[in-house]
Amino acid sequence: MITSTANQKIKRIVQLNKKAGERKKEDVFVAEGLKMFLEVPEERLCEVYLSESFLPILEELGEKGKKARQKLEVCGYETVSDEVFRKISDTQAPQGILCIVRQCHYSLEEVLREKECPLLLVLENLQDPGNLGTILRAGEGAGVCGVVMSRDTADIYNPKVIRATMGSIYRMPFFYTENLEEAIIRIKEAGVTVFAAHLKGEGNYDKCDYCRPSAFLIGNEGKGLTERTADLADSYVKIPMEGKVESLNAAVAAALLVYEAARQRRERD
Amino acid sequence: MITSTANQKIKRIVQLNKKAGERKKEDVFVAEGLKMFLEVPEERLCEVYLSESFLPILEELGEKGKKARQKLEVCGYETVSDEVFRKISDTQAPQGILCIVRQCHYSLEEVLREKECPLLLVLENLQDPGNLGTILRAGEGAGVCGVVMSRDTADIYNPKVIRATMGSIYRMPFFYTENLEEAIIRIKEAGVTVFAAHLKGEGNYDKCDYCRPSAFLIGNEGKGLTERTADLADSYVKIPMEGKVESLNAAVAAALLVYEAARQRRERD
Repeated sequence: MITSTANQKIKRIVQLNKKAGERKKEDVFVAEGLKMFLEVPEERLCEVYLSESFLPILEELGEKGKKARQKLEVCGYETVSDEVFRKISDTQAPQGILCIVRQCHYSLEEVLREKECPLLLVLENLQDPGNLGTILRAGEGAGVCGVVMSRDTADIYNPKVIRATMGSIYRMPFFYTENLEEAIIRIKEAGVTVFAAHLKGEGNYDKCDYCRPSAFLIGNEGKGLTERTADLADSYVKIPMEGKVESLNAAVAAALLVYEAARQRRERD
Repeated sequence: MITSTANQKIKRIVQLNKKAGERKKEDVFVAEGLKMFLEVPEERLCEVYLSESFLPILEELGEKGKKARQKLEVCGYETVSDEVFRKISDTQAPQGILCIVRQCHYSLEEVLREKECPLLLVLENLQDPGNLGTILRAGEGAGVCGVVMSRDTADIYNPKVIRATMGSIYRMPFFYTENLEEAIIRIKEAGVTVFAAHLKGEGNYDKCDYCRPSAFLIGNEGKGLTERTADLADSYVKIPMEGKVESLNAAVAAALLVYEAARQRRERD
Protein backbone atom coordinates (compact mmCIF):
# COMPACT_ATOMS: atom_id res chain seq x y z
CA MET A 1 0.00 0.00 0.00
CA ILE A 2 1.27 3.48 -0.88
CA THR A 3 1.18 5.63 2.24
CA SER A 4 3.39 8.56 1.24
CA THR A 5 2.37 11.48 -0.95
CA ALA A 6 6.07 11.75 -1.88
CA ASN A 7 5.77 8.46 -3.80
CA GLN A 8 6.67 8.96 -7.48
CA LYS A 9 3.45 7.33 -8.75
CA ILE A 10 1.40 9.67 -6.59
CA LYS A 11 3.30 12.73 -7.73
CA ARG A 12 2.72 11.65 -11.32
CA ILE A 13 -1.08 11.30 -10.87
CA VAL A 14 -1.26 14.76 -9.28
CA GLN A 15 0.52 16.14 -12.37
CA LEU A 16 -1.79 14.22 -14.72
CA ASN A 17 -4.79 15.77 -12.97
CA LYS A 18 -3.38 19.27 -13.15
CA LYS A 19 -1.62 19.52 -16.48
CA ALA A 20 -2.96 18.94 -19.98
CA GLY A 21 0.68 18.84 -21.16
CA GLU A 22 1.52 15.89 -18.89
CA ARG A 23 -1.58 14.03 -20.04
CA LYS A 24 -0.62 14.63 -23.66
CA LYS A 25 2.99 13.53 -23.11
CA GLU A 26 1.88 10.22 -21.61
CA ASP A 27 -1.19 9.92 -23.87
CA VAL A 28 -3.40 9.09 -20.87
CA PHE A 29 -5.97 10.74 -18.61
CA VAL A 30 -7.35 10.22 -15.10
CA ALA A 31 -10.92 8.96 -14.67
CA GLU A 32 -12.33 8.93 -11.16
CA GLY A 33 -15.26 7.18 -9.55
CA LEU A 34 -16.97 3.80 -9.73
CA LYS A 35 -19.11 4.57 -12.78
CA MET A 36 -16.07 5.74 -14.74
CA PHE A 37 -14.20 2.56 -13.76
CA LEU A 38 -17.10 0.27 -14.69
CA GLU A 39 -17.52 1.87 -18.11
CA VAL A 40 -13.89 2.14 -19.19
CA PRO A 41 -13.13 -0.25 -22.08
CA GLU A 42 -10.63 -2.81 -20.72
CA GLU A 43 -8.22 -2.39 -23.61
CA ARG A 44 -7.76 1.27 -22.69
CA LEU A 45 -7.40 0.78 -18.93
CA CYS A 46 -3.77 1.26 -17.83
CA GLU A 47 -3.78 1.42 -14.02
CA VAL A 48 -6.27 1.42 -11.15
CA TYR A 49 -5.82 2.95 -7.70
CA LEU A 50 -8.09 2.25 -4.74
CA SER A 51 -8.23 3.93 -1.35
CA GLU A 52 -7.76 1.54 1.56
CA SER A 53 -11.36 1.92 2.66
CA PHE A 54 -12.83 1.35 -0.82
CA LEU A 55 -12.89 -2.46 -1.08
CA PRO A 56 -15.11 -2.97 2.02
CA ILE A 57 -17.55 -0.39 0.56
CA LEU A 58 -17.79 -2.43 -2.67
CA GLU A 59 -19.13 -5.36 -0.66
CA GLU A 60 -22.24 -3.35 0.14
CA LEU A 61 -23.02 -2.31 -3.43
CA GLY A 62 -24.77 -5.48 -4.65
CA GLU A 63 -24.65 -6.18 -8.39
CA LYS A 64 -22.57 -3.10 -9.22
CA GLY A 65 -20.04 -3.98 -6.54
CA LYS A 66 -19.82 -7.54 -7.84
CA LYS A 67 -19.12 -6.33 -11.38
CA ALA A 68 -16.47 -3.95 -10.07
CA ARG A 69 -14.76 -6.71 -8.05
CA GLN A 70 -14.65 -8.98 -11.11
CA LYS A 71 -13.17 -6.23 -13.26
CA LEU A 72 -10.63 -5.39 -10.54
CA GLU A 73 -9.53 -9.03 -10.39
CA VAL A 74 -8.86 -9.05 -14.12
CA CYS A 75 -7.09 -5.71 -14.40
CA GLY A 76 -5.31 -5.58 -11.05
CA TYR A 77 -5.01 -2.50 -8.83
CA GLU A 78 -2.84 -0.71 -6.33
CA THR A 79 -4.05 0.35 -2.87
CA VAL A 80 -3.21 3.71 -1.35
CA SER A 81 -3.96 5.13 2.09
CA ASP A 82 -7.07 7.32 2.38
CA GLU A 83 -4.88 10.35 2.97
CA VAL A 84 -2.89 9.67 -0.19
CA PHE A 85 -6.10 9.10 -2.13
CA ARG A 86 -7.38 12.53 -1.12
CA LYS A 87 -4.19 13.91 -2.66
CA ILE A 88 -4.71 12.23 -6.06
CA SER A 89 -8.46 12.85 -6.14
CA ASP A 90 -9.85 15.88 -7.93
CA THR A 91 -13.10 15.78 -5.92
CA GLN A 92 -14.02 17.02 -2.48
CA ALA A 93 -15.58 13.73 -1.41
CA PRO A 94 -13.60 11.03 -3.27
CA GLN A 95 -15.31 7.69 -3.90
CA GLY A 96 -11.96 5.91 -3.55
CA ILE A 97 -11.36 4.56 -7.07
CA LEU A 98 -9.38 6.18 -9.85
CA CYS A 99 -8.00 4.87 -13.14
CA ILE A 100 -5.40 5.92 -15.64
CA VAL A 101 -6.88 5.50 -19.10
CA ARG A 102 -5.31 5.62 -22.56
CA GLN A 103 -6.43 8.60 -24.66
CA CYS A 104 -8.28 8.10 -27.94
CA HIS A 105 -7.56 9.99 -31.15
CA TYR A 106 -9.83 10.47 -34.12
CA SER A 107 -9.32 12.27 -37.41
CA LEU A 108 -11.96 14.66 -38.73
CA GLU A 109 -12.67 12.10 -41.46
CA GLU A 110 -13.31 9.39 -38.87
CA VAL A 111 -15.70 11.69 -36.99
CA LEU A 112 -17.56 12.44 -40.23
CA ARG A 113 -17.77 8.79 -41.25
CA GLU A 114 -19.10 7.67 -37.86
CA LYS A 115 -22.75 7.68 -38.92
CA GLU A 116 -24.59 7.66 -42.22
CA CYS A 117 -26.51 10.82 -41.43
CA PRO A 118 -24.13 12.74 -39.20
CA LEU A 119 -25.22 14.96 -36.34
CA LEU A 120 -22.25 17.04 -35.18
CA LEU A 121 -21.43 19.68 -32.61
CA VAL A 122 -18.74 22.24 -33.40
CA LEU A 123 -17.47 24.13 -30.35
CA GLU A 124 -15.54 27.38 -30.60
CA ASN A 125 -13.44 28.33 -27.58
CA LEU A 126 -15.76 26.77 -25.01
CA GLN A 127 -14.09 27.39 -21.66
CA ASP A 128 -16.04 25.80 -18.85
CA PRO A 129 -15.05 22.14 -18.27
CA GLY A 130 -18.45 21.38 -16.74
CA ASN A 131 -20.18 22.69 -19.86
CA LEU A 132 -17.94 20.67 -22.17
CA GLY A 133 -18.57 17.45 -20.23
CA THR A 134 -22.31 18.12 -20.07
CA ILE A 135 -22.34 18.66 -23.85
CA LEU A 136 -20.65 15.30 -24.47
CA ARG A 137 -23.18 13.59 -22.19
CA ALA A 138 -26.26 15.24 -23.72
CA GLY A 139 -24.73 14.84 -27.18
CA GLU A 140 -24.40 11.08 -26.80
CA GLY A 141 -27.96 10.96 -25.49
CA ALA A 142 -29.25 12.77 -28.58
CA GLY A 143 -27.26 10.62 -31.00
CA VAL A 144 -24.51 13.10 -31.85
CA CYS A 145 -21.77 11.23 -33.72
CA GLY A 146 -18.87 13.57 -33.02
CA VAL A 147 -17.68 16.84 -31.50
CA VAL A 148 -15.26 19.14 -33.33
CA MET A 149 -13.49 21.76 -31.21
CA SER A 150 -11.26 24.75 -31.82
CA ARG A 151 -7.82 24.30 -30.25
CA ASP A 152 -8.59 26.97 -27.61
CA THR A 153 -11.55 24.98 -26.23
CA ALA A 154 -11.07 23.51 -22.73
CA ASP A 155 -9.09 20.25 -22.61
CA ILE A 156 -11.48 17.34 -22.97
CA TYR A 157 -9.27 15.29 -20.61
CA ASN A 158 -9.51 17.81 -17.76
CA PRO A 159 -10.83 15.85 -14.72
CA LYS A 160 -13.85 18.17 -14.44
CA VAL A 161 -14.81 17.42 -18.05
CA ILE A 162 -14.38 13.67 -17.51
CA ARG A 163 -16.60 13.78 -14.43
CA ALA A 164 -19.35 15.78 -16.14
CA THR A 165 -19.44 13.36 -19.11
CA MET A 166 -20.57 10.50 -16.81
CA GLY A 167 -18.84 8.05 -19.17
CA SER A 168 -19.57 9.62 -22.56
CA ILE A 169 -15.86 10.54 -22.79
CA TYR A 170 -15.18 6.86 -23.59
CA ARG A 171 -17.63 6.77 -26.46
CA MET A 172 -17.96 10.18 -28.11
CA PRO A 173 -15.59 10.71 -31.06
CA PHE A 174 -14.01 14.16 -31.05
CA PHE A 175 -11.45 16.18 -32.94
CA TYR A 176 -9.46 19.30 -31.98
CA THR A 177 -8.63 21.47 -34.94
CA GLU A 178 -5.86 24.06 -35.26
CA ASN A 179 -7.95 25.76 -37.93
CA LEU A 180 -11.69 25.86 -37.18
CA GLU A 181 -12.51 27.67 -40.41
CA GLU A 182 -10.89 24.95 -42.51
CA ALA A 183 -12.58 22.21 -40.46
CA ILE A 184 -16.03 23.78 -40.97
CA ILE A 185 -15.37 24.02 -44.71
CA ARG A 186 -14.45 20.34 -44.78
CA ILE A 187 -17.60 19.49 -42.81
CA LYS A 188 -19.68 21.39 -45.36
CA GLU A 189 -17.88 19.70 -48.25
CA ALA A 190 -18.90 16.37 -46.72
CA GLY A 191 -22.52 17.38 -47.31
CA VAL A 192 -23.33 18.51 -43.78
CA THR A 193 -25.50 21.61 -43.30
CA VAL A 194 -24.00 23.93 -40.70
CA PHE A 195 -26.34 25.78 -38.33
CA ALA A 196 -25.30 28.50 -35.92
CA ALA A 197 -27.27 29.40 -32.82
CA HIS A 198 -27.01 33.15 -33.19
CA LEU A 199 -28.84 36.36 -32.39
CA LYS A 200 -28.92 36.98 -36.16
CA GLY A 201 -31.20 33.94 -36.44
CA GLU A 202 -34.62 34.75 -37.87
CA GLY A 203 -36.31 31.39 -37.65
CA ASN A 204 -36.86 29.55 -34.40
CA TYR A 205 -34.62 26.51 -33.97
CA ASP A 206 -37.58 24.13 -34.09
CA LYS A 207 -38.57 25.36 -37.56
CA CYS A 208 -35.43 24.19 -39.38
CA ASP A 209 -35.00 20.72 -40.82
CA TYR A 210 -32.20 18.71 -39.17
CA CYS A 211 -33.09 15.34 -40.69
CA ARG A 212 -30.31 15.70 -43.25
CA PRO A 213 -26.67 15.63 -42.09
CA SER A 214 -26.39 18.59 -39.69
CA ALA A 215 -23.86 20.37 -37.50
CA PHE A 216 -24.44 23.01 -34.83
CA LEU A 217 -21.89 25.73 -34.07
CA ILE A 218 -21.71 26.63 -30.37
CA GLY A 219 -19.64 29.62 -29.23
CA ASN A 220 -17.76 30.71 -26.13
CA GLU A 221 -19.77 31.17 -22.91
CA GLY A 222 -19.25 34.92 -22.66
CA LYS A 223 -18.61 36.05 -26.21
CA GLY A 224 -20.58 33.60 -28.31
CA LEU A 225 -19.31 32.71 -31.79
CA THR A 226 -16.71 34.91 -33.49
CA GLU A 227 -18.11 36.68 -36.55
CA ARG A 228 -15.61 34.85 -38.72
CA THR A 229 -16.95 31.47 -37.60
CA ALA A 230 -20.61 32.47 -37.61
CA ASP A 231 -20.17 33.68 -41.20
CA LEU A 232 -19.40 30.12 -42.28
CA ALA A 233 -22.82 28.81 -41.18
CA ASP A 234 -25.34 27.87 -43.86
CA SER A 235 -28.16 29.00 -41.63
CA TYR A 236 -28.73 30.90 -38.38
CA VAL A 237 -31.20 29.61 -35.86
CA LYS A 238 -32.68 31.34 -32.86
CA ILE A 239 -33.65 29.80 -29.54
CA PRO A 240 -36.57 31.99 -28.46
CA MET A 241 -36.20 33.48 -24.99
CA GLU A 242 -38.90 34.98 -22.81
CA GLY A 243 -38.36 37.40 -19.94
CA LYS A 244 -35.13 39.35 -19.96
CA VAL A 245 -32.86 36.40 -20.78
CA GLU A 246 -30.20 37.42 -23.31
CA SER A 247 -28.63 34.01 -23.87
CA LEU A 248 -28.68 30.48 -22.53
CA ASN A 249 -25.91 28.46 -20.90
CA ALA A 250 -23.79 26.94 -23.72
CA ALA A 251 -24.50 23.34 -22.66
CA VAL A 252 -28.25 24.03 -22.43
CA ALA A 253 -28.26 25.64 -25.89
CA ALA A 254 -26.31 22.72 -27.38
CA ALA A 255 -28.64 20.19 -25.72
CA LEU A 256 -31.80 21.95 -26.97
CA LEU A 257 -30.48 21.95 -30.55
CA VAL A 258 -29.31 18.33 -30.70
CA TYR A 259 -32.44 17.07 -28.94
CA GLU A 260 -34.59 18.99 -31.42
CA ALA A 261 -32.66 17.24 -34.21
CA ALA A 262 -33.22 13.90 -32.45
CA ARG A 263 -36.94 14.66 -32.11
CA GLN A 264 -37.25 15.42 -35.83
CA ARG A 265 -35.31 12.30 -36.77
CA ARG A 266 -37.61 10.17 -34.58
CA GLU A 267 -40.66 11.74 -36.25
CA ARG A 268 -39.23 10.95 -39.69
CA ASP A 269 -38.45 7.31 -38.95
CA MET B 1 -11.19 53.47 0.34
CA ILE B 2 -11.17 50.27 2.38
CA THR B 3 -7.66 48.78 2.31
CA SER B 4 -7.80 46.28 5.15
CA THR B 5 -9.38 42.83 5.04
CA ALA B 6 -9.89 43.21 8.80
CA ASN B 7 -12.50 45.92 8.12
CA GLN B 8 -15.88 44.93 9.59
CA LYS B 9 -17.76 45.52 6.32
CA ILE B 10 -15.34 43.24 4.49
CA LYS B 11 -15.60 40.51 7.11
CA ARG B 12 -19.37 40.72 6.82
CA ILE B 13 -19.36 40.29 3.02
CA VAL B 14 -17.07 37.26 3.32
CA GLN B 15 -19.61 35.74 5.73
CA LEU B 16 -22.52 36.59 3.43
CA ASN B 17 -20.75 34.78 0.58
CA LYS B 18 -20.02 31.73 2.68
CA LYS B 19 -23.04 31.23 4.88
CA ALA B 20 -26.69 30.79 3.95
CA GLY B 21 -27.53 31.47 7.62
CA GLU B 22 -25.90 34.91 7.54
CA ARG B 23 -27.72 35.78 4.32
CA LYS B 24 -31.01 34.70 5.85
CA LYS B 25 -30.40 36.68 9.06
CA GLU B 26 -29.76 39.89 7.13
CA ASP B 27 -32.31 39.03 4.41
CA VAL B 28 -29.77 39.93 1.68
CA PHE B 29 -27.44 38.22 -0.80
CA VAL B 30 -24.26 39.09 -2.71
CA ALA B 31 -24.45 39.59 -6.48
CA GLU B 32 -21.18 40.00 -8.34
CA GLY B 33 -20.28 41.31 -11.76
CA LEU B 34 -21.35 44.14 -14.06
CA LYS B 35 -24.34 42.33 -15.57
CA MET B 36 -25.70 41.50 -12.12
CA PHE B 37 -25.29 45.15 -11.07
CA LEU B 38 -26.96 46.50 -14.22
CA GLU B 39 -29.96 44.22 -13.84
CA VAL B 40 -30.61 44.56 -10.11
CA PRO B 41 -33.88 46.44 -9.46
CA GLU B 42 -32.91 49.70 -7.74
CA GLU B 43 -35.40 49.28 -4.91
CA ARG B 44 -33.65 46.06 -3.86
CA LEU B 45 -30.08 47.36 -4.11
CA CYS B 46 -28.59 47.91 -0.64
CA GLU B 47 -24.84 48.51 -1.14
CA VAL B 48 -22.29 48.52 -3.95
CA TYR B 49 -18.55 47.83 -3.66
CA LEU B 50 -16.03 48.59 -6.42
CA SER B 51 -12.37 47.61 -6.69
CA GLU B 52 -10.05 50.58 -7.11
CA SER B 53 -9.22 49.60 -10.69
CA PHE B 54 -12.85 49.13 -11.74
CA LEU B 55 -13.96 52.72 -12.51
CA PRO B 56 -11.28 53.30 -15.19
CA ILE B 57 -12.34 50.03 -16.87
CA LEU B 58 -15.95 51.29 -17.04
CA GLU B 59 -14.77 54.20 -19.21
CA GLU B 60 -13.84 51.75 -21.94
CA LEU B 61 -17.15 49.87 -22.00
CA GLY B 62 -19.19 52.24 -24.18
CA GLU B 63 -22.96 52.22 -23.68
CA LYS B 64 -22.89 49.59 -20.94
CA GLY B 65 -20.24 51.52 -19.02
CA LYS B 66 -22.28 54.71 -19.31
CA LYS B 67 -25.39 53.01 -17.93
CA ALA B 68 -23.36 51.59 -15.07
CA ARG B 69 -21.84 54.99 -14.22
CA GLN B 70 -25.30 56.58 -14.16
CA LYS B 71 -26.65 53.87 -11.88
CA LEU B 72 -23.59 54.16 -9.61
CA GLU B 73 -24.15 57.92 -9.30
CA VAL B 74 -27.72 57.37 -8.14
CA CYS B 75 -27.09 54.50 -5.73
CA GLY B 76 -23.64 55.43 -4.44
CA TYR B 77 -20.79 53.01 -3.81
CA GLU B 78 -17.75 52.27 -1.70
CA THR B 79 -14.27 51.67 -3.14
CA VAL B 80 -11.96 48.94 -1.84
CA SER B 81 -8.38 48.07 -2.78
CA ASP B 82 -7.90 45.36 -5.40
CA GLU B 83 -6.47 43.06 -2.76
CA VAL B 84 -9.49 43.54 -0.52
CA PHE B 85 -11.80 42.98 -3.49
CA ARG B 86 -10.20 39.61 -4.19
CA LYS B 87 -11.10 38.72 -0.61
CA ILE B 88 -14.81 39.55 -0.99
CA SER B 89 -15.08 38.09 -4.48
CA ASP B 90 -16.27 34.54 -5.00
CA THR B 91 -14.65 34.29 -8.45
CA GLN B 92 -11.10 33.59 -9.55
CA ALA B 93 -10.95 36.59 -11.87
CA PRO B 94 -13.17 39.23 -10.23
CA GLN B 95 -14.67 41.94 -12.47
CA GLY B 96 -14.44 44.44 -9.61
CA ILE B 97 -18.09 45.17 -8.82
CA LEU B 98 -20.26 43.54 -6.20
CA CYS B 99 -23.59 44.44 -4.68
CA ILE B 100 -25.57 43.53 -1.61
CA VAL B 101 -29.17 42.93 -2.66
CA ARG B 102 -32.35 42.49 -0.64
CA GLN B 103 -33.84 38.97 -0.86
CA CYS B 104 -37.29 38.39 -2.30
CA HIS B 105 -39.94 36.12 -0.78
CA TYR B 106 -42.93 34.56 -2.49
CA SER B 107 -45.67 32.31 -1.18
CA LEU B 108 -46.64 29.17 -3.11
CA GLU B 109 -49.93 30.91 -3.93
CA GLU B 110 -48.09 33.86 -5.44
CA VAL B 111 -45.97 31.52 -7.56
CA LEU B 112 -49.11 29.74 -8.77
CA ARG B 113 -50.94 32.98 -9.55
CA GLU B 114 -48.01 34.43 -11.54
CA LYS B 115 -49.40 33.38 -14.93
CA GLU B 116 -52.77 32.34 -16.27
CA CYS B 117 -51.46 29.03 -17.64
CA PRO B 118 -48.64 28.17 -15.22
CA LEU B 119 -45.47 26.37 -16.24
CA LEU B 120 -43.63 25.29 -13.10
CA LEU B 121 -40.47 23.47 -12.13
CA VAL B 122 -40.41 21.47 -8.89
CA LEU B 123 -36.91 20.55 -7.70
CA GLU B 124 -36.25 17.82 -5.14
CA ASN B 125 -32.92 17.99 -3.32
CA LEU B 126 -30.98 19.47 -6.24
CA GLN B 127 -27.44 19.92 -4.92
CA ASP B 128 -25.24 21.55 -7.54
CA PRO B 129 -25.41 25.37 -7.37
CA GLY B 130 -24.40 25.66 -11.05
CA ASN B 131 -27.30 23.40 -12.04
CA LEU B 132 -29.77 25.38 -9.95
CA GLY B 133 -28.67 28.69 -11.46
CA THR B 134 -28.71 27.26 -14.98
CA ILE B 135 -32.26 25.97 -14.39
CA LEU B 136 -33.46 29.43 -13.32
CA ARG B 137 -31.86 30.98 -16.43
CA ALA B 138 -33.24 28.40 -18.89
CA GLY B 139 -36.56 28.43 -17.04
CA GLU B 140 -37.00 32.16 -17.49
CA GLY B 141 -36.07 31.75 -21.17
CA ALA B 142 -38.77 29.12 -21.63
CA GLY B 143 -41.44 31.12 -19.80
CA VAL B 144 -41.46 29.20 -16.52
CA CYS B 145 -43.45 31.22 -13.99
CA GLY B 146 -41.96 29.78 -10.80
CA VAL B 147 -39.68 27.23 -9.19
CA VAL B 148 -40.72 25.22 -6.13
CA MET B 149 -37.92 23.53 -4.18
CA SER B 150 -37.65 21.04 -1.34
CA ARG B 151 -35.92 22.56 1.68
CA ASP B 152 -32.81 20.37 1.11
CA THR B 153 -32.20 21.87 -2.34
CA ALA B 154 -29.09 24.08 -2.65
CA ASP B 155 -29.51 27.65 -1.38
CA ILE B 156 -30.72 29.84 -4.23
CA TYR B 157 -28.69 32.76 -2.82
CA ASN B 158 -25.38 30.85 -2.93
CA PRO B 159 -22.96 33.02 -5.00
CA LYS B 160 -22.46 30.19 -7.52
CA VAL B 161 -26.21 29.98 -8.12
CA ILE B 162 -26.48 33.76 -8.51
CA ARG B 163 -23.67 33.78 -11.08
CA ALA B 164 -25.14 30.92 -13.12
CA THR B 165 -28.57 32.63 -13.27
CA MET B 166 -27.09 35.55 -15.25
CA GLY B 167 -29.75 37.81 -13.76
CA SER B 168 -32.76 35.48 -13.68
CA ILE B 169 -32.45 35.40 -9.87
CA TYR B 170 -33.97 38.91 -9.83
CA ARG B 171 -37.00 37.86 -11.82
CA MET B 172 -37.89 34.21 -11.25
CA PRO B 173 -40.42 33.64 -8.45
CA PHE B 174 -39.51 30.71 -6.22
CA PHE B 175 -40.65 28.97 -3.09
CA TYR B 176 -38.85 26.63 -0.66
CA THR B 177 -41.16 24.16 0.97
CA GLU B 178 -40.67 22.24 4.21
CA ASN B 179 -43.05 19.61 2.87
CA LEU B 180 -42.64 18.84 -0.83
CA GLU B 181 -45.45 16.28 -0.82
CA GLU B 182 -47.94 18.82 0.49
CA ALA B 183 -46.71 21.45 -1.98
CA ILE B 184 -47.17 19.10 -4.94
CA ILE B 185 -50.68 18.28 -3.76
CA ARG B 186 -51.50 21.99 -3.56
CA ILE B 187 -50.07 22.49 -7.07
CA LYS B 188 -52.30 19.69 -8.36
CA GLU B 189 -55.33 21.14 -6.56
CA ALA B 190 -54.66 24.39 -8.42
CA GLY B 191 -55.35 22.50 -11.66
CA VAL B 192 -51.74 21.95 -12.68
CA THR B 193 -50.79 18.58 -14.24
CA VAL B 194 -47.60 17.23 -12.67
CA PHE B 195 -45.10 15.41 -14.91
CA ALA B 196 -42.05 13.52 -13.67
CA ALA B 197 -39.00 12.84 -15.82
CA HIS B 198 -38.52 9.26 -14.78
CA LEU B 199 -37.19 5.94 -16.02
CA LYS B 200 -40.73 4.59 -15.47
CA GLY B 201 -41.86 6.93 -18.25
CA GLU B 202 -43.37 5.10 -21.20
CA GLY B 203 -44.07 7.96 -23.54
CA ASN B 204 -41.37 10.26 -24.89
CA TYR B 205 -41.43 13.73 -23.38
CA ASP B 206 -42.36 15.33 -26.72
CA LYS B 207 -45.55 13.25 -26.95
CA CYS B 208 -47.30 14.71 -23.91
CA ASP B 209 -49.42 17.83 -23.97
CA TYR B 210 -48.02 20.69 -21.89
CA CYS B 211 -50.32 23.41 -23.22
CA ARG B 212 -52.45 23.17 -20.10
CA PRO B 213 -51.04 24.27 -16.73
CA SER B 214 -48.01 22.01 -16.20
CA ALA B 215 -45.28 21.30 -13.68
CA PHE B 216 -42.15 19.17 -14.08
CA LEU B 217 -40.57 17.30 -11.17
CA ILE B 218 -36.76 17.21 -11.31
CA GLY B 219 -34.79 15.04 -8.88
CA ASN B 220 -31.38 15.04 -7.24
CA GLU B 221 -28.32 14.79 -9.54
CA GLY B 222 -27.20 11.38 -8.33
CA LYS B 223 -30.35 9.75 -6.99
CA GLY B 224 -33.11 11.22 -9.12
CA LEU B 225 -36.57 11.67 -7.59
CA THR B 226 -37.49 9.81 -4.42
CA GLU B 227 -40.20 7.21 -4.99
CA ARG B 228 -42.49 9.09 -2.63
CA THR B 229 -42.26 12.23 -4.75
CA ALA B 230 -42.36 10.45 -8.10
CA ASP B 231 -45.56 8.67 -6.96
CA LEU B 232 -47.31 12.04 -6.77
CA ALA B 233 -46.88 12.74 -10.49
CA ASP B 234 -49.92 12.55 -12.77
CA SER B 235 -47.74 11.27 -15.57
CA TYR B 236 -44.20 9.98 -16.19
CA VAL B 237 -42.28 11.16 -19.19
CA LYS B 238 -39.10 9.78 -20.69
CA ILE B 239 -36.32 11.69 -22.38
CA PRO B 240 -35.04 9.16 -24.94
CA MET B 241 -31.31 8.50 -24.74
CA GLU B 242 -29.11 6.91 -27.35
CA GLY B 243 -25.73 5.30 -26.75
CA LYS B 244 -25.03 4.16 -23.21
CA VAL B 245 -26.27 7.31 -21.51
CA GLU B 246 -28.26 6.44 -18.38
CA SER B 247 -29.42 9.92 -17.46
CA LEU B 248 -28.92 13.55 -18.38
CA ASN B 249 -27.55 16.40 -16.32
CA ALA B 250 -30.42 17.77 -14.19
CA ALA B 251 -30.25 21.26 -15.72
CA VAL B 252 -30.22 19.82 -19.25
CA ALA B 253 -33.22 17.59 -18.48
CA ALA B 254 -35.14 20.51 -16.97
CA ALA B 255 -34.30 22.74 -19.95
CA LEU B 256 -35.41 20.12 -22.49
CA LEU B 257 -38.74 19.70 -20.74
CA VAL B 258 -39.61 23.38 -20.30
CA TYR B 259 -38.46 24.23 -23.82
CA GLU B 260 -40.63 21.42 -25.19
CA ALA B 261 -43.54 22.97 -23.30
CA ALA B 262 -42.63 26.38 -24.74
CA ARG B 263 -42.48 24.90 -28.26
CA GLN B 264 -45.95 23.36 -27.89
CA ARG B 265 -47.37 26.60 -26.50
CA ARG B 266 -45.94 28.56 -29.47
CA GLU B 267 -47.50 26.04 -31.87
CA ARG B 268 -50.88 26.44 -30.19
CA ASP B 269 -50.91 30.24 -30.25
